[in-house]
Amino acid sequence: MADTKARILATSGELFQRHGYAGTGLKRIAAAARAPFGSIYHFFPGGKQQLAAEVIRAEGAGYRDLVTAILDQAGSAEQAMELAFAAAADRLVETDFADACPIATLALEVASTNEPLREATAEVFTDWIEAGAARFQRWGFPAPAARRLAIGFLNALEGAFVLARALRDTEPLEAAGALMRAAVRAQSAAR
Amino acid sequence: MADTKARILATSGELFQRHGYAGTGLKRIAAAARAPFGSIYHFFPGGKQQLAAEVIRAEGAGYRDLVTAILDQAGSAEQAMELAFAAAADRLVETDFADACPIATLALEVASTNEPLREATAEVFTDWIEAGAARFQRWGFPAPAARRLAIGFLNALEGAFVLARALRDTEPLEAAGALMRAAVRAQSAAR
Repeated sequence: MADTKARILATSGELFQRHGYAGTGLKRIAAAARAPFGSIYHFFPGGKQQLAAEVIRAEGAGYRDLVTAILDQAGSAEQAMELAFAAAADRLVETDFADACPIATLALEVASTNEPLREATAEVFTDWIEAGAARFQRWGFPAPAARRLAIGFLNALEGAFVLARALRDTEPLEAAGALMRAAVRAQSAAR
Repeated sequence: MADTKARILATSGELFQRHGYAGTGLKRIAAAARAPFGSIYHFFPGGKQQLAAEVIRAEGAGYRDLVTAILDQAGSAEQAMELAFAAAADRLVETDFADACPIATLALEVASTNEPLREATAEVFTDWIEAGAARFQRWGFPAPAARRLAIGFLNALEGAFVLARALRDTEPLEAAGALMRAAVRAQSAAR
């Protein structure tokens, strides 16, 4: 049973990422997850909205772990920015420009239309900002600068994904990486 | 008749921006535009996809004009970054965090699922990058740096919109403005 629930969550994550919230029906999720339709309501009595909220939280935690594992390979903020944007570009190319932020499509869809799901995306972004800020502090930045750099990093990553996927080109990720490295150097020099 | 078509385009633009492509049906568009349902197929024989492609191009041109008008008030790249992110933050607050990039929600939805619409979003982003790069060149940056800064500006704006709308907070736009100003100063100093 736990396997079925995990399969529904993982499949929904993929479908929501590629087709959005409105574009993904429960029947499609059940079929793709090889789960009986009724099992969705068994595991998620609140239906599609509850399922999506759990997907957002699970995918959010998974992506935070993926990105922080990359950041933690770096010895400096500048190197971290280089590694992170290079890894994001590689992943985009490997997946034919499909695999980017797991929650951004949903986040834009629900921001003004579904308050419980907006709150779920806000929790994830808050968690990512804190995880990023902790790294920039570890690399020697004082708390306010660390928070600003973490938000700037997430801005740049999310925005570059929008442009790169539309353009089918990694140039936006390369530009984002170069500008974040410049911003990190400028902030270091200002200390 | 031209009024009806214009009303359908404007209404669709708003609905697509708030509810996404999959989340906006033609019946809802017709009702909101106070247009007979059949008039949509009269003006857009290709149906929803053709309508969406025209909306993406029209909204893309309109938003380029809006943003470049703000950039053109500035005497320097640094001032332009300050004005642009401040204006975007004001607009978000005024519209209860709804009114941001008119095509980003669609762009993420269609990137891997609808090739003609992905191409329409790519044309818009290409146009915006060129319009931005022309400004950075005018402010004294050589062509490669100007292009990188223009892409970085659009990355930061798009990404900050994702975070700011989810968080219902303008902090991401303020962080984006601060980091773009730092990147501009760093690029200027490097010359």
